[in-house]
Amino acid sequence: MKQIVGGVCAAKGFTANGIRCGIRKNKTKRDIALIYSEVPGSAAAVYTKNLVKGAPLTVTKNNIENGVAQAMICNSGNANTCNANGIEIATMTCELLAKEMGIKADDVIVASTGVIGQPLDITPIADGMAELVRGLGDNCDLACEGIMTTDTKKKEIAFSFEIDGVECKIGGIAKGSGMIHPNMATMLVFLTTDCCVSSEMLKKALSRDVVDSFNMISVDGDTSTNDMVSIIANGMAANDPITGEGEAYDTFCEALHAVTAYLCRSIAADGEGATKMLECVVDGALDNDTARTVAKSVICSSLFKAAMFGADANWGRVLCAIGYSGADVDVTKVSVAFKSDKGEILVCKDGAGVEFSEDKAKEILLEQEIQIIIGLGDGDGHAVAWGCDLTYDYVKINGDYRT
Amino acid sequence: MKQIVGGVCAAKGFTANGIRCGIRKNKTKRDIALIYSEVPGSAAAVYTKNLVKGAPLTVTKNNIENGVAQAMICNSGNANTCNANGIEIATMTCELLAKEMGIKADDVIVASTGVIGQPLDITPIADGMAELVRGLGDNCDLACEGIMTTDTKKKEIAFSFEIDGVECKIGGIAKGSGMIHPNMATMLVFLTTDCCVSSEMLKKALSRDVVDSFNMISVDGDTSTNDMVSIIANGMAANDPITGEGEAYDTFCEALHAVTAYLCRSIAADGEGATKMLECVVDGALDNDTARTVAKSVICSSLFKAAMFGADANWGRVLCAIGYSGADVDVTKVSVAFKSDKGEILVCKDGAGVEFSEDKAKEILLEQEIQIIIGLGDGDGHAVAWGCDLTYDYVKINGDYRT
Repeated sequence: MKQIVGGVCAAKGFTANGIRCGIRKNKTKRDIALIYSEVPGSAAAVYTKNLVKGAPLTVTKNNIENGVAQAMICNSGNANTCNANGIEIATMTCELLAKEMGIKADDVIVASTGVIGQPLDITPIADGMAELVRGLGDNCDLACEGIMTTDTKKKEIAFSFEIDGVECKIGGIAKGSGMIHPNMATMLVFLTTDCCVSSEMLKKALSRDVVDSFNMISVDGDTSTNDMVSIIANGMAANDPITGEGEAYDTFCEALHAVTAYLCRSIAADGEGATKMLECVVDGALDNDTARTVAKSVICSSLFKAAMFGADANWGRVLCAIGYSGADVDVTKVSVAFKSDKGEILVCKDGAGVEFSEDKAKEILLEQEIQIIIGLGDGDGHAVAWGCDLTYDYVKINGDYRT
Repeated sequence: MKQIVGGVCAAKGFTANGIRCGIRKNKTKRDIALIYSEVPGSAAAVYTKNLVKGAPLTVTKNNIENGVAQAMICNSGNANTCNANGIEIATMTCELLAKEMGIKADDVIVASTGVIGQPLDITPIADGMAELVRGLGDNCDLACEGIMTTDTKKKEIAFSFEIDGVECKIGGIAKGSGMIHPNMATMLVFLTTDCCVSSEMLKKALSRDVVDSFNMISVDGDTSTNDMVSIIANGMAANDPITGEGEAYDTFCEALHAVTAYLCRSIAADGEGATKMLECVVDGALDNDTARTVAKSVICSSLFKAAMFGADANWGRVLCAIGYSGADVDVTKVSVAFKSDKGEILVCKDGAGVEFSEDKAKEILLEQEIQIIIGLGDGDGHAVAWGCDLTYDYVKINGDYRT
C-alpha cells in the first residue's frame, strides 16, 4: 500500500468538481461539490445517530437501499435540516443532477452542511447544475472547497493497494471542524474506490471501520445532525470481486482504514480554533471498548483541552477525565505520558504524580501534534482517539457563526 | 419561608471562620475555612461519582458513617487527590482540629479543593489551626473566601422556615466555577441547619435534593474528583424531631431546596469566564428523567454555550443537543423559546423554525440571565438545568491554571 495523489479522483473512473452556485452570501467561497463515477458502483453509508437528522440523510438512505450509487452531491452553507420542505429540496437536488447527467435520481448520494433550520432555496442549485457538471474532471481540490464550512484546510488523501496482483485505488475527502463528536457515524466524508467489492461487504467494511476511525474523534462534544460517511466502489480496477471475508477483504479494509485514519487526524487538527492536534493512545485496558471510552473521555475534556492550549502538563485533568469516563479502570494502576517530536515524558505512574521537568514538559507540549499515552495495566485493550485543544478562536468562531 | 442573612452562621449554634494559612503561594487569598456547631448534630453527605476520588472524601465518608458531625474544615489551593499520602494528611487535619477544639476527630467533615496530584503539606494547616479556631464567629463571608478557587463571587444564602410553629433556619455556602458537571453528587457545598432531623431523614432529604439541584448544573462537562455536599443539622431550634416522612419533612425539604437551588444558580452564573447564566426549563417530557437529560444536554453543548456568549439565537444548536441527548423525544413536536428580563421570543415550533425578529432576539439574549424554554409535547415531565456561556476567559483561565 502506498500513498498517491488525487483524493476522490485517484480511483479509476471518478471525476469531481466544486463551484460557487450562490447558496452562501460569501461571494468567493465554493458552495456545492459533485463526485461522479463513469459507471454505477456498490455503495454504502453510515449516518449520524442524532435523533434530529438532516433531510439529505433520509433521501440518501432511501436512494442507496439497493446498494448502488453513481454520484455524490453536497452543498455547504445550509444544512437543510429542521426545514418543513427539506426532503423535497434534497429530492429535487438528486433529480436535477440526474437530468443533467442522464443518470438515475436514486443513484445519487446527497448531503448538506451548514446552518440548521433555515430553508434551503433550490434556485441557486438548479441554476448552477449545468456548470457543476460541465466542470467535472480531475478536480478533487475544487470538490474539497465546495464542502468546507469553518474548515481552514482541505482534507484529501488517496492510497493504492493490490488485490490478487491487481492494482486498486481508494481515496477520500472530508469536511468537519465544529460540531464534531460523531456517534456511530460521522461528519461528511466521501470515499471512492475502483476496487470491486460487493455492496454487502462494502457496508460491512465501512461499519467496522468507523468504530475505530470517525467515532474516535471529538472537537467539541456536539454530535451533528448531518454526519455521514459514504463510499462508492465502482469496480473499474477489475480485481476479482470481493464477496466475502478473507485476505482480499482484509487488504481492502486496511486500505480503507489508511484513508479514514488520515482524514480523522486532519479533521481533529483542523478543529475549530485549534492550534494543536491531540492523539490519545490507550493501552492495557480490559478490552478495546474500555480503551475507547477512556481515550474519548480524555480528548473530550474541556479542561484538559484548555490545558493543552496553554502547553500545561496538568495530568490531574487526564486522571479526572479517566475517572468520570464510566470505564472500568483501576485508578491506582494508571500511567500517563506526554509525547511529541520533542520527546516523551512520564508524568503519572500508579495513579500518582512522579517528579518530572516542567521545562521539558513545556517544550514537548508546545508542539502542534501531541500524544497522550495512557497505560491502564489491566489487559490488552487498545484504542486511539483524536481531538484538539480548546482556544479563544473556538469561542470566537462559534459566538457569531450565523451573524 | 423567608430569605435571611448569615449563610452557614444563620442557624442557631453555628459559627465560622476563614484565614490564609499559607497553602497557596498567593499572599492575600484565604485558603482554609472552618464551620463549627456548638453541639454535635446529624450529618449527611453526597460525593462525586468520579472513580478518582479526593482523599478527604474517603476520610469524611468514614467519619460520618455514624450519622454525626460537629465541624466542617476545607482548604483551597490543593485538592489532596492522587497523592500517595492523601488519606494521612486528611486524617491529620481532622486530628489537629479536634485537638485544638476539644471535639472528636471523627466528628469532622474534611474537604479540599484545588490542583490535583501535588502533595499537600500539613505544616501550614498545623501552624494556622489555632488562629482559625480563635476567629470563629459570625464570619460566613470569611469561610466563603477560604474555600474559593477560581470563583469570583461568594456564594451564600440562608432561609428561615417553621416546623410545627417552631422557627428553624437553614443556610449554606458553595464553591465551584470550573470542573463543574456533578454526577450524583456535586462540587463543594456546606449546609447548616438548626432543625432537628434524624440523620436517616437528613440523608434521604439530601440525596433526593441533589437530583434536581447540583446534578443539574454544568459549567464545562468535567466531573470533579472532589465534589461533595455535606450538611449538619444540630437540632438547636428544638422542633419536634423529624424522624419520618410527612408535612414537617416536606417543609424541611422545601427549605433545603430553596438553599440548594440558589447555590446552583450562583455556581452557574459564576462559571469560569461566564458572562451569562443559562437556565434551561424543559416541560412536556415523557417523565422527569427525560426532561433532565434534555435540559442537561442543552446547557452542556459547547456550541450552544458559545452562541449564547455571542447573543446569537441559533436555536438549531438547541435542537441538535436535544437530538443527541439520548432522550426519548419526538423531534417534530419540539418548541424552543428564549426569555430574559427583556421579554420572551418563540424561535422554533414543531421541530422547525418560525419567523422571528432577530433584533428582538438579540435584545433578549444580551441580558445576563437567559432562560431557554423547551416544550416536548409528550407528557408531564419537567426539569430545570443551569449552566453558563463559553467565553474567551474560560479558555484563558484554564490554559494556565497551574502555572
